[in-house]
Amino acid sequence: MTRRRQIYEGKAKILYEGPEPGTIIQYFKDDATAFNAQKKGTISGKGVLNNRISEHLFTLLGTIGIPTHFIRRLNMREQLVRQVEIVPIEVVVRNVVAGSLAKRFGLEEGATLPRTILEYYYKDDALGDPLITDEHISAFGWATQDEMHDIADMAIRINDFMAGLFAGVGIRLVDFKLEFGRLFDGDFSRIILADEISPDGCRLWDLKTDEKLDKDRFRRDLGGEAEAYQEVARRLGLLTDGTVSTVLDMDEHRKSRGK
Amino acid sequence: MTRRRQIYEGKAKILYEGPEPGTIIQYFKDDATAFNAQKKGTISGKGVLNNRISEHLFTLLGTIGIPTHFIRRLNMREQLVRQVEIVPIEVVVRNVVAGSLAKRFGLEEGATLPRTILEYYYKDDALGDPLITDEHISAFGWATQDEMHDIADMAIRINDFMAGLFAGVGIRLVDFKLEFGRLFDGDFSRIILADEISPDGCRLWDLKTDEKLDKDRFRRDLGGEAEAYQEVARRLGLLTDGTVSTVLDMDEHRKSRGK
Ligand SMILES: Nc1ncnc2c1ncn2[C@@H]1O[C@H](COP(=O)(O)OP(=O)(O)O)[C@@H](O)[C@H]1O
Ligand SMILES: Nc1ncnc2c1ncn2[C@@H]1O[C@H](COP(=O)(O)OP(=O)(O)O)[C@@H](O)[C@H]1O
Ligand SMILES: [Mg+2]
Ligand SMILES: [Mg+2]
Repeated sequence: MTRRRQIYEGKAKILYEGPEPGTIIQYFKDDATAFNAQKKGTISGKGVLNNRISEHLFTLLGTIGIPTHFIRRLNMREQLVRQVEIVPIEVVVRNVVAGSLAKRFGLEEGATLPRTILEYYYKDDALGDPLITDEHISAFGWATQDEMHDIADMAIRINDFMAGLFAGVGIRLVDFKLEFGRLFDGDFSRIILADEISPDGCRLWDLKTDEKLDKDRFRRDLGGEAEAYQEVARRLGLLTDGTVSTVLDMDEHRKSRGK
Repeated sequence: MTRRRQIYEGKAKILYEGPEPGTIIQYFKDDATAFNAQKKGTISGKGVLNNRISEHLFTLLGTIGIPTHFIRRLNMREQLVRQVEIVPIEVVVRNVVAGSLAKRFGLEEGATLPRTILEYYYKDDALGDPLITDEHISAFGWATQDEMHDIADMAIRINDFMAGLFAGVGIRLVDFKLEFGRLFDGDFSRIILADEISPDGCRLWDLKTDEKLDKDRFRRDLGGEAEAYQEVARRLGLLTDGTVSTVLDMDEHRKSRGK
């Protein structure tokens, strides 16, 4: 896999030019960041798991008619996706009070919200991803009203589907972040789901114990991050596949040898 | 004016029970606060001027069909208003980049916005008046969709009218804050404009020199706050009335004698 042009290195993934025009390769790293990258670390095997979990979720979402960038997984850490122009908005869907929402409004973590809340944040690390409203999106031209309409509709459908999927495996879908992009077809473009859906950008709590199975373990120094991500994959039925376990074992092995 | 029951003392005004049920008296203090009351001071004569300026603006807005709480001015520092249930939302209308908007999005102060932006902040000093979206308002039941519709419509009309009014006297209406309330009539309620409109909650820049004629003089320790508020009143034609000038002179006189 040499001689590919690297397009971008982000906090959790590297993007490479894909084999055909209009495609790119997402390489999933083990790097973990929190609090706008002020806190940095790695979660061993995370990239492998997120690649697999995101493949699974995007594939399922495709079956209910959500258009996504996902084409196919290439190997343990890489997937081929359609290149899009990312809408610079992080869409957060919240079912339960947690994180910045609890802080902003002085609410208790864990309370079920009276209704699902959609929030938009301007995707700009230097500005700390500030909360934005439809007014800012429209005034600054970050997306059209039609695009925001499609995005909100899809976010709600994705939430319903994923809430069901996770409930089925004993997990409470507290909140999650989505990114969307514009897929161009000549002058015309349409909105599709892009980036990833993984425990990096979701809050997933065990339905019975409220145990956190997501990046909050890292944010809050709870330990057991790798095990939490594995548990999510396991519950989704993704660790029966021998290769993933093998690679995770290899990662573990490498680590224990101090490499 | 003794034996009136005080209902509330805020950062800039005191509310007293009014002479008839459903009315209250707003007493305008000279107290000034900034940065969520971390900075405190007084601006001599401010209460007198804000009472007068707010009376003027609410009266004019009434003439274009904006329903307001204003009934009549009682004296230099007091006005009689209809009591409402305040909607716990500060409505900010922005025409030009300034203040927190500049900071939040890394924009240059003074740039004209591509279009007017309406922002909503949850009115809660303890939480620092956080920015909110329609989603939060709806989920937490702070206002109904119908109410927000009326509020947005009125805010836009108020902005158009005030932008014109101030342009006519050589002032750029950069941004301003409004509060609305519910006026009950049995079970039914309707939204009317409440609180005040004054240089405390507006950014007003001289059209030619960009000189700030508002509370930013206090926030940024620019000096000349009282003179700036007087200048706004003067341009609006409100200082020809001898009484205001006299009271301001008296305030000045008191101050110079160290009282
Ligand atoms: N299909 C796609 N086409 C183009 N860019 C994408 C696509 N999917 C995701 N991206 C972008 O690629 C980057 C993924 O890397 P990541 O490490 O998550 O970056 P970041 O630190 O910016 O979040 C993100 O900036 C994301 O917006
Ligand atoms: N017509 C009204 N009826 C009831 N309350 C009002 C009315 N107009 C304004 N208020 C409220 O009265 C208070 C005015 O005092 P102020 O010093 O501005 O208080 P604050 O520090 O809360 O901003 C505000 O809390 C405002 O919401
Ligand atoms: Mg990312
Ligand atoms: Mg006030």
